[in-house]
Amino acid sequence: MPREIKIEMGLQCPTPMPVQDSILLGHGSGGKMSADLLRSVLLPALQNRVLERLDDQAIVEINGSKLAFTTDSFVVKPLFFPGGDIGALAVNGTINDLAMGGAQPMFLSLALILEEGLSMETLKRVIESIRVAAAIAGVPVVTGDTKVVEKGCGDGLFLNTSGIGVVSEKVQLSANKACPGDCVLLSGTIGDHGITILSQREGLQFESAVASDTAALHRLVADMLIAGSGIRCMRDPTRGGLSSSLNEIAVRSEVGIELDENAIPIREDVQGACEMLGLDPLYVANEGKLVAIVDAAAADRILEAMRRNPLGRNAARIGTVTSSHLGMVTMRTRMGTSRIVDMLAGDQLPRIC
Amino acid sequence: MPREIKIEMGLQCPTPMPVQDSILLGHGSGGKMSADLLRSVLLPALQNRVLERLDDQAIVEINGSKLAFTTDSFVVKPLFFPGGDIGALAVNGTINDLAMGGAQPMFLSLALILEEGLSMETLKRVIESIRVAAAIAGVPVVTGDTKVVEKGCGDGLFLNTSGIGVVSEKVQLSANKACPGDCVLLSGTIGDHGITILSQREGLQFESAVASDTAALHRLVADMLIAGSGIRCMRDPTRGGLSSSLNEIAVRSEVGIELDENAIPIREDVQGACEMLGLDPLYVANEGKLVAIVDAAAADRILEAMRRNPLGRNAARIGTVTSSHLGMVTMRTRMGTSRIVDMLAGDQLPRIC
Repeated sequence: MPREIKIEMGLQCPTPMPVQDSILLGHGSGGKMSADLLRSVLLPALQNRVLERLDDQAIVEINGSKLAFTTDSFVVKPLFFPGGDIGALAVNGTINDLAMGGAQPMFLSLALILEEGLSMETLKRVIESIRVAAAIAGVPVVTGDTKVVEKGCGDGLFLNTSGIGVVSEKVQLSANKACPGDCVLLSGTIGDHGITILSQREGLQFESAVASDTAALHRLVADMLIAGSGIRCMRDPTRGGLSSSLNEIAVRSEVGIELDENAIPIREDVQGACEMLGLDPLYVANEGKLVAIVDAAAADRILEAMRRNPLGRNAARIGTVTSSHLGMVTMRTRMGTSRIVDMLAGDQLPRIC
Repeated sequence: MPREIKIEMGLQCPTPMPVQDSILLGHGSGGKMSADLLRSVLLPALQNRVLERLDDQAIVEINGSKLAFTTDSFVVKPLFFPGGDIGALAVNGTINDLAMGGAQPMFLSLALILEEGLSMETLKRVIESIRVAAAIAGVPVVTGDTKVVEKGCGDGLFLNTSGIGVVSEKVQLSANKACPGDCVLLSGTIGDHGITILSQREGLQFESAVASDTAALHRLVADMLIAGSGIRCMRDPTRGGLSSSLNEIAVRSEVGIELDENAIPIREDVQGACEMLGLDPLYVANEGKLVAIVDAAAADRILEAMRRNPLGRNAARIGTVTSSHLGMVTMRTRMGTSRIVDMLAGDQLPRIC
C-alpha cells in the first residue's frame, strides 16, 4: 500500500502559492504550481503573442499556411505499464497536443536523453513502441537527436517529441472562446492512465485489468470538426487531470463551468481505486481523452460523431458553461450538493507522463 | 589536471564497433558509436525517406511550402561557462541546425526537464539567457513544456529545443551533394567550445580568455546564400567536431575530402591546450562554426561574403573534395605527411552540449 500519497483536493488550497527558492515536484504537476512557475519565471522572459495564448500548441503562420507546433518531454515512471509505455505516450501525447488545436498532425521529432547503462533491449523496446504508435497514427518521425548522460545523472530514458500540424483556415480553437450556455463534452472515462501508473508503482491489483488509455485522438477530432462548426476549444486532460484543463478554460474565457458528477464517465474499478487511495479522479491524468467546449446548438451532433468513433464511444455531456462563478469550476455532486473544483495545488502523482 | 581523458585519434579504431548490450557515454558522442546506434536501432524502426537523409534537419513540405524541422536536447555540464550557458546553446544550436539546411529559422519550442531542488535562481538565469539569445537571433520561443523529476533522477536541468524554418524553393542542400573538385570552407577557428567546457571541468587556466563560440549562424548562412548558388551542403561541427561532420559528408556523397592542416584556423591557446591534453582539435566540439562544401567556381565569392560577416571573419578554404579515398577524410599535415582523419570512435568529452 502507498505510504506517501499527497492528496490535493479542491478546497484545500485556494490561496496563491508562495514563490519557492527551488524547484519542487509540484512544479511539474500541471496544476497550480506549474502555472505559477510559468507566470512568474517563463512568461515574463519569453513573452510574445503566440506563447501567451497558453494553449497546448502554438498556432503560427508560415507562407500563408496556419501551422500548429508543440513540444512535450516524457519522464514517466515506470517506462512500461499496462496499455502502453513511454514511447507510445510520447507519440500520442504530442499528436494530441496538435489535435487539440484542431490541427492535422503531420510530422514528429524525437529526442532521447539516455542514461549510461540503460539496457539496449529496453531502448529497442521503446523505439519499437514509437514505431508502432507512429504507424497507427500515420504521423512519421522525421528528425531526431540522442544524448547520453552519466549513470546517476538521469533515470534510464527521457523522451521529447515535438510536432507540426496543419490547421484549416476556418478552424479557430482557443481556451478563451468558451461562452455561457456552451456544453462541456468529455470523450470517455477519466483516471485510467493515472491509476494504472500508480497501481504499477505501488503494486496494487484490481479484479479487472486497468490499463492506460494512451491513444492518438486526431481522427476523433477530425470526426468532430466534420460534424459541427460549434467547437470553441479542446483540451486533453493529462497532468493535473480534468479539473486543471477546465479551470484553465474557465479563467481564460472568464466564465464559470458547472459539472454534473453523475454524468462524468469513470470505470468502476478506477472509481474504487480512487476511493481507496483517497484520490479525486478529477485530478488524475488521462492520456487518451479530450474535453471539448461546444456551442449548445451543435452539441448533439458533435456528441454523436464522437460516439461513432471507438475512442469516443463513452463520450458524454458532463457540464455547462455559465455566467456565474467566473473563472471557477463547480460541480453538482452525486449527493446533490455543490462544490468548487479548484486546480491541483501540489503534485498528486509525480512523473505520470 | 584531468585524470581520465579518453583520447580517440583517427587511426586507432578503423573497424566497426561491436553492438553493445547497454548504452555507453560514447553513444552520445556524435561520432562512430552514435552513428552505429542510429543505424542499428533507430533507423531500422523509424525509417522513412525524410529521416533517412540524416542531415541536421528534416526538410518537409506542407501546403507547397518547404519547411525545415529539427530537434536537439542539451545536457551540457557545467550549465554556465565562459561565453555562454546551456540556454544560449539550446537557442543557437537549434537555429544552426535549421540554418545548415539553408532555412530561415522562424519558431522555437522549449522543453525543460528540471531536477527537484534546482535553485530558482539558476532556472531564472538560464531562462534569461534563452530570452537574450532568442532576441538576438530574432527567433521567438512560441511553445513549451516543463517536467520535474525527483532529486537524483536528473542533473539540475536538461533542455530541448525544436525549431521550424522556411527554405527557399531554389535552395537544396544535403550531405550527399558534394562533388570532386568542390572546395571545403570553414567559418572560423575550431575547438573553442570544447576546450572551454573541458577547462571549466578540470580547472585549467589559460593566459588569454578562451570562451565558447556559441552563436546563431543563420545570418551568416543568409549572406552565403545571397553570394552564390554553388553551396552543396553545410554542417555545424558540434559533437564529434570537424572530423565527424566531414566524414559524414564523405560517406554520404561517396567522395574523398582532403584537408590542409596549415589552412585550418585555430586559436593558439586552444592549439596549446589540445597539445597539452593530448586532444586532436579536429574532434573537439564547436557551437558557432560551420563547414560548407561549395562549387569551386563560387568559392571565392562565398568566402568573401563569409569574411564580411563578424561570425565568419576568420573563414578559410581548408580543403578539397576529391575522387580518391572515397568515403574518407584525409589531411596533409603541417609536417607534409598525409593521414586519415576517421570519425570519433568513443567519447572524447561527454556532455559537451
